Amino acid sequence: VLTNASYGKSRVRLVQVARHGDRHDLSELTIGIRFEGEYDDAYVAGDNRDVLPTDTMKNTVYALAAGRPILSPETFALALGAHFLDRNPRLSRVRIDVTDYAWERIEGGHAGSAFVRRGPDARIAVVTADRHSIVVEGGVADLLVLKSSGSAFSGFMRDELTTLPDTDDRLLATAVTATWRYQDDHVEFNSAWAAARIALLDAFAGHESASVQHTLYAMGEAVLARVSGVASLHIVMPNKHHLPVDLSRFGLENRNEVFVPTDEPHGLIEATISR
Amino acid sequence: VLTNASYGKSRVRLVQVARHGDRHDLSELTIGIRFEGEYDDAYVAGDNRDVLPTDTMKNTVYALAAGRPILSPETFALALGAHFLDRNPRLSRVRIDVTDYAWERIEGGHAGSAFVRRGPDARIAVVTADRHSIVVEGGVADLLVLKSSGSAFSGFMRDELTTLPDTDDRLLATAVTATWRYQDDHVEFNSAWAAARIALLDAFAGHESASVQHTLYAMGEAVLARVSGVASLHIVMPNKHHLPVDLSRFGLENRNEVFVPTDEPHGLIEATISR
Amino acid sequence: VLTNASYGKSRVRLVQVARHGDRHDLSELTIGIRFEGEYDDAYVAGDNRDVLPTDTMKNTVYALAAGRPILSPETFALALGAHFLDRNPRLSRVRIDVTDYAWERIEGGHAGSAFVRRGPDARIAVVTADRHSIVVEGGVADLLVLKSSGSAFSGFMRDELTTLPDTDDRLLATAVTATWRYQDDHVEFNSAWAAARIALLDAFAGHESASVQHTLYAMGEAVLARVSGVASLHIVMPNKHHLPVDLSRFGLENRNEVFVPTDEPHGLIEATISR
Amino acid sequence: VLTNASYGKSRVRLVQVARHGDRHDLSELTIGIRFEGEYDDAYVAGDNRDVLPTDTMKNTVYALAAGRPILSPETFALALGAHFLDRNPRLSRVRIDVTDYAWERIEGGHAGSAFVRRGPDARIAVVTADRHSIVVEGGVADLLVLKSSGSAFSGFMRDELTTLPDTDDRLLATAVTATWRYQDDHVEFNSAWAAARIALLDAFAGHESASVQHTLYAMGEAVLARVSGVASLHIVMPNKHHLPVDLSRFGLENRNEVFVPTDEPHGLIEATISR
Repeated sequence: VLTNASYGKSRVRLVQVARHGDRHDLSELTIGIRFEGEYDDAYVAGDNRDVLPTDTMKNTVYALAAGRPILSPETFALALGAHFLDRNPRLSRVRIDVTDYAWERIEGGHAGSAFVRRGPDARIAVVTADRHSIVVEGGVADLLVLKSSGSAFSGFMRDELTTLPDTDDRLLATAVTATWRYQDDHVEFNSAWAAARIALLDAFAGHESASVQHTLYAMGEAVLARVSGVASLHIVMPNKHHLPVDLSRFGLENRNEVFVPTDEPHGLIEATISR
Repeated sequence: VLTNASYGKSRVRLVQVARHGDRHDLSELTIGIRFEGEYDDAYVAGDNRDVLPTDTMKNTVYALAAGRPILSPETFALALGAHFLDRNPRLSRVRIDVTDYAWERIEGGHAGSAFVRRGPDARIAVVTADRHSIVVEGGVADLLVLKSSGSAFSGFMRDELTTLPDTDDRLLATAVTATWRYQDDHVEFNSAWAAARIALLDAFAGHESASVQHTLYAMGEAVLARVSGVASLHIVMPNKHHLPVDLSRFGLENRNEVFVPTDEPHGLIEATISR
Repeated sequence: VLTNASYGKSRVRLVQVARHGDRHDLSELTIGIRFEGEYDDAYVAGDNRDVLPTDTMKNTVYALAAGRPILSPETFALALGAHFLDRNPRLSRVRIDVTDYAWERIEGGHAGSAFVRRGPDARIAVVTADRHSIVVEGGVADLLVLKSSGSAFSGFMRDELTTLPDTDDRLLATAVTATWRYQDDHVEFNSAWAAARIALLDAFAGHESASVQHTLYAMGEAVLARVSGVASLHIVMPNKHHLPVDLSRFGLENRNEVFVPTDEPHGLIEATISR
Repeated sequence: VLTNASYGKSRVRLVQVARHGDRHDLSELTIGIRFEGEYDDAYVAGDNRDVLPTDTMKNTVYALAAGRPILSPETFALALGAHFLDRNPRLSRVRIDVTDYAWERIEGGHAGSAFVRRGPDARIAVVTADRHSIVVEGGVADLLVLKSSGSAFSGFMRDELTTLPDTDDRLLATAVTATWRYQDDHVEFNSAWAAARIALLDAFAGHESASVQHTLYAMGEAVLARVSGVASLHIVMPNKHHLPVDLSRFGLENRNEVFVPTDEPHGLIEATISR
C-alpha cells in the first residue's frame, strides 16, 4: 500500500534583476515545489504518462519570473501554485516553499545596481494549495538573538540526576525560526512580514524571561497582538547555551562576563500560538 | 491558545567504550529527546515547577550509558523513553531520536581497540512512546548509491514548458533516507536493520528503473518482502542529477561516459509503503 | 627529518559581556592559537616536558578576557601573543587567528543588553609574532556582493575548447575575503578596519569591471589609497557565476533579468597588492 | 605592486563511467585548477587578451575525460597540467587539485554497474608543474580514527593556568589529513596510495602514544618506511577530544567507559616528515 507519496523539485535557485533605468531591484529566491495527487501508477507500475517532470517545474519558475518583477515571495509562490493546479488535473495538492535572501544597496556611486548581502536571517514563505483552499505562510529563519540581562531559569523540577543550579541572570541566546499563517491570501505581505519580524525582536528584547518557553510564548503573543493579518504562528527556538567559565581555578572572578558559547547539545523548544 | 508545544534536548553526543579485556566495543550515538505533556504553565506563566531541565535529559543519557553496554540504538532509546515516562507524571509523550555512527576495527596489531569510521551513511532509530503505546523505528540516512545501467525516464507528461528529452539510459544517483516501523518492540533490531539495508541496496541495484518513483517503490517492497519484523517504511530519495556533458562542441562524442554531478536543483521523491 | 611542525588550539569560542550599568557591550570571538618552536622531542621521543597543553592555551583565552573589555580583535590577539612568548622559552613563533562576529543592538526597550546578529560577513584579525617582530593583519571574510551593471568579460584568449561568449553586461557576484597587513601594531584598528571595509564596498560598486581580476585590483588600490595604516592586502574572490536562463525555449525573451546563481564550479581569483 | 596573483576554476565536478560490457568502472572527481603567470595586464589594465577563461579550464576537464578511462587522480592531474602548459605561453606554473570519492560495487544482481559510496575519507592528489619541474602529491583527507587503549598524555609543562590532569589512558581520536610527495611522476600511484593509507592506519593502531605529536610522527615514519615511492609527507591531525563524563555526581562510577565527543575547541597538530 502506497501512502504519503509526493514528488517535486528542491533548491531551484533564482535571481531576478528588475531594471528601472539605472536603479535595479534584486531578488534572490531558493524555491521548492512538491506535488501530491493521483500519481500511484508511476510508483507501482513505472507508468510516467501523468508525471510532469521535475525539470519542467524548474523551467516554470524561470518562465514565471520573466517580465514581471517579483513583489514578494508569497505572491510569487501563489502564482506558481495556481499555475501548477491549472494545468495538472491529477495534482490534488501543491506546496511551494520559498527562501528569500536579503540584499541591500551599497551606498555611493553605483548605488542603484550594487548590493551587499544582509543576513544571516532569511525570509521564508510557504504556499499550500489544493482545489478548495489556499494557505499562505510567512516567516523568518535563523534570526540569531542574544540578551545579557532579563533572563533567569530557576524553580524547576529536580530529580536525582539534576545537577543544574538555579540562575537568576543568565545569557539567553537562540536562533529563531518562526512561521506564521496569514488570515488569507490578500494580506499586504511585505508590511505584515516586516511588522512580525520587529514584533519578534521587540518581544525578545523586552521580556523578563523565566525560560525559553516563557519567552517563546511572549514572542508569539506579540506577533498576534501587533499584526492583525496573522492567524497563528509556530516558533522553534534552540537554547544556544552560553556557559559561564569557572575562572576561580586561576584565582580570578567571573563577574558574569566570560562565557563559552556552545552549539551542542542544545535545548530545543517549540510551540504553535493561535488566536 | 498554545498547541503543538514540545521541549527537549538535541545533539547529545555519547561515545561508549565497552571493555572486554583487550577487545573493546565502541558505540557513537547522537541523541535527541523531546517531551510533550502538560507543560503549558511554563510557556504562559513562566512557572518552571514541572519542567525537568533539558540539562537533566542530557545527564540521563550518560547515566543510562554507565555500566551497561549499548546493544542497539533501539534498545537504548527504549530505555531512555521508559525512564522519562516513569519519572515525569506530566509527560504524555516522549520521542527519542538516535543517530548511530559506524566504526569498524582496524585490522592488525591493536585490532581490539583501534577503529576507523565507516560512512557516509548512518543508522537511525526513533522511539515514540506514550502511556499506552510504543512505536519503534529504525532506518538509514545518507546512503549514497548510483547505477550506470538499468535506468530510464521517458513517456512522461509534457506541457509547453517541458524541454527534457526522453532517455532510456541515464545515470541514477540518490542519497537514500529510509525509516521503517517495526512490528513491535521485541524485534531483533540489529539483524533486522542489517537485512533491511541489504534489501534496499539489492533492490536498487537490480531494478529496471522507469523513474525514481518506480525504484523507490521497488525498494520499499523489497524490505517488506524480506524483513518480516518491518510493518511499513517511509523512503525519501533526492534525484541527484548527473548531466551528460555536451562534448560535440569540441568535436568529441560523449558515449554516455562523461557527466557533471549536480547538487541543486534536485528532484525529491518520497512515499510510505505499508503491508 | 621533522620540519614545519606546529601545534595549538583551534576554535576556542569566547563571548564577553562588558557591563556598563544597563548598557552592555558584547564581543563574540572564535580564536585559534598556533605554536612553533623547539618541540621536536615531543614528536620524536614522546617527551612532553616542554609542551604547554593546548588545554592551557584555551584557559589563557578565558583568563585574559576576565576583567578587561576587549577593545578590538587585534589588541586581544596581541595580548595573547605576548603572554605566550613571555612564558614559553621554547616558543619561537606564535600565531593568533581571531574571527569576530558582529552583533548589533535591538532598538527599543532593553536596547542596552539585547542584540541581533549581523552577517554573513565576519571581521578577522591575525597576529604573528616571534622574538624580533610582530605582524598584525585585519580583514573581512564572506562579504557577499553583487552588481547588476558595470561588469563585462570580453576579448579574452580563445582556444579550441573555448565556448564562452563575450559579454558586455553580466552579473558580477563574489564573496570577498580580504586580509590586510597593518603598517605596525599601533594603528587605530577599529577605525582602520571600518575604513577598509567601506573602501572595498565602494570600489566594487563603482568600478567599470572588465573581469574579476580587474575589479579585485581596483578594490586593493582603493584600500591602499584610503587607509594609510595598511601596508598591503591579499584578496581572494570567487566568481560566483550567475547564468542567464535561456527563455527562448519557451517563446520568452530574457532581457538580462532572470539568472541561475551557481556555487560550483566557480572561478577563483586572488592577488596581493602592496604599496 | 601586484604579487602572488593566481586565477583558476574550483569545484569542477566530474563523473566518468568507463563501460567494459556489463561491467562499468566509476570515477568521481572534484577538480581545482590554478594558473600563475604573466597575467598582470588583466588585473591592472583590464586587458583580457592573454586570459584563458576559467570556463575553458572547466571544458578542458571534460574534454580530457572523453574516451580515456581515468586510471588514477594523479595521472589525470598530470594530463591536465601538461595540456595547460603546452597551450598557454604566459602560464608559468599550474596547480591541479583533485579529490577522488570512492564508490564500491553493490554485490549481487547488477553488480557490474551499481555502486555505493564509501567514506567519509577521500583520496586527494595534487600536481604542481612549471616549465622545469613537476611535483606529484597524493594523500587522504578526513580519515577518522579512534583508539581506546595505548594513549596517554602526561608529564607536560605546567603554568599557573594549567588545569589539565595527567592521564595514562585516554581516548585518542582524530581526522587524519595527510599529503605525501612522490619521488617522481612515474610511481605506481594506486598501489603506493593504498600502501600509504594502510601504513597510516597500522601505525595509528599499534602505537603506544604519548601525545598526538608522538603518534603523528610515528605515522609519518611508517609511511616512509613502507612506501619507497614517497619522499616526504605532511600530516595534519586535530585532537578530537573525548571528555570522560563525571558520573560521580549521580553516585555512579565511570570506568573509562562513557565519553562526550567534542568538535570545538580542538587541538591541532601538524608536521612534515622527510627522509
